[in-house]
Amino acid sequence: MEGWKLWVGLAGWIVASFAAAVVGGFFTPGEWYAQLNKPAWNPPAWIFGPVWTALYLGMAVAAWLVWKRGGFAGAPVALGLFLAQLLFNGAWSWLFFGLHRPGLALAEILVLWALILATLVAFWTVHRAAGLLFVPYLAWVSFASFLNFTLWRLNR
Amino acid sequence: MEGWKLWVGLAGWIVASFAAAVVGGFFTPGEWYAQLNKPAWNPPAWIFGPVWTALYLGMAVAAWLVWKRGGFAGAPVALGLFLAQLLFNGAWSWLFFGLHRPGLALAEILVLWALILATLVAFWTVHRAAGLLFVPYLAWVSFASFLNFTLWRLNR
Repeated sequence: MEGWKLWVGLAGWIVASFAAAVVGGFFTPGEWYAQLNKPAWNPPAWIFGPVWTALYLGMAVAAWLVWKRGGFAGAPVALGLFLAQLLFNGAWSWLFFGLHRPGLALAEILVLWALILATLVAFWTVHRAAGLLFVPYLAWVSFASFLNFTLWRLNR
Repeated sequence: MEGWKLWVGLAGWIVASFAAAVVGGFFTPGEWYAQLNKPAWNPPAWIFGPVWTALYLGMAVAAWLVWKRGGFAGAPVALGLFLAQLLFNGAWSWLFFGLHRPGLALAEILVLWALILATLVAFWTVHRAAGLLFVPYLAWVSFASFLNFTLWRLNR
């Protein structure tokens, strides 16, 4: 692949990943979220922004590493899984913060978790570092799933 | 501003900046560029990708720093200048690599240079670090302008 294509590709994966962040960001904590019963270990709100910024940047770089090995055609399953998890990532905010449906969001985040794991494995087989870049993301969504479960249980 | 809004805003400025990179990236060096007469000091092609990636990230963070002081309404001139320079940034690739018009691209990059300087000054008055983040960008476009001038002169 020619040099410039590599970097335009990186820009493209950054745009795709952060577009999911922006779409998810349309649905945000408000009064409804403020009045929910929360566990004592609920993280402070300021944590989520920096964590997600780092995770979106990491996933963009991971997808780019896999993509630059041979384009989309070189790893269609891995990159297809990546786009699917990105879709579910953005959709979670809609279900939870938009529709106020913690139970539905819980079911959705478990699918997201499985898609992230599948993407991690698929990335790992193509490019080790790309797989490793997905580890913090999987860890965070594991925690987020448990938080979602707890919020659902405490507010039924 | 609430915490989550800050970070969605950062994601938005990243998307805007790298979208300009992707749009500019549609128009890329090809056969036409390869056969141009070039100066001896023409940088190697691999330099442009990493440099521009860093510059786009820096300009996104700069715009975010200014924006988070008071939103778009808090600095409409500075952020308007930013968006204008982003437009001219993406359009340069179209004129040079798309239309193969080095002379027209030279006129355009001089306007871009002036817009970058104006944005730098406007950012500086709102947030010092945001102004400083524009210094490497201005330096690179100064160099790129001179390269564009040289390529125009050598290939008339």
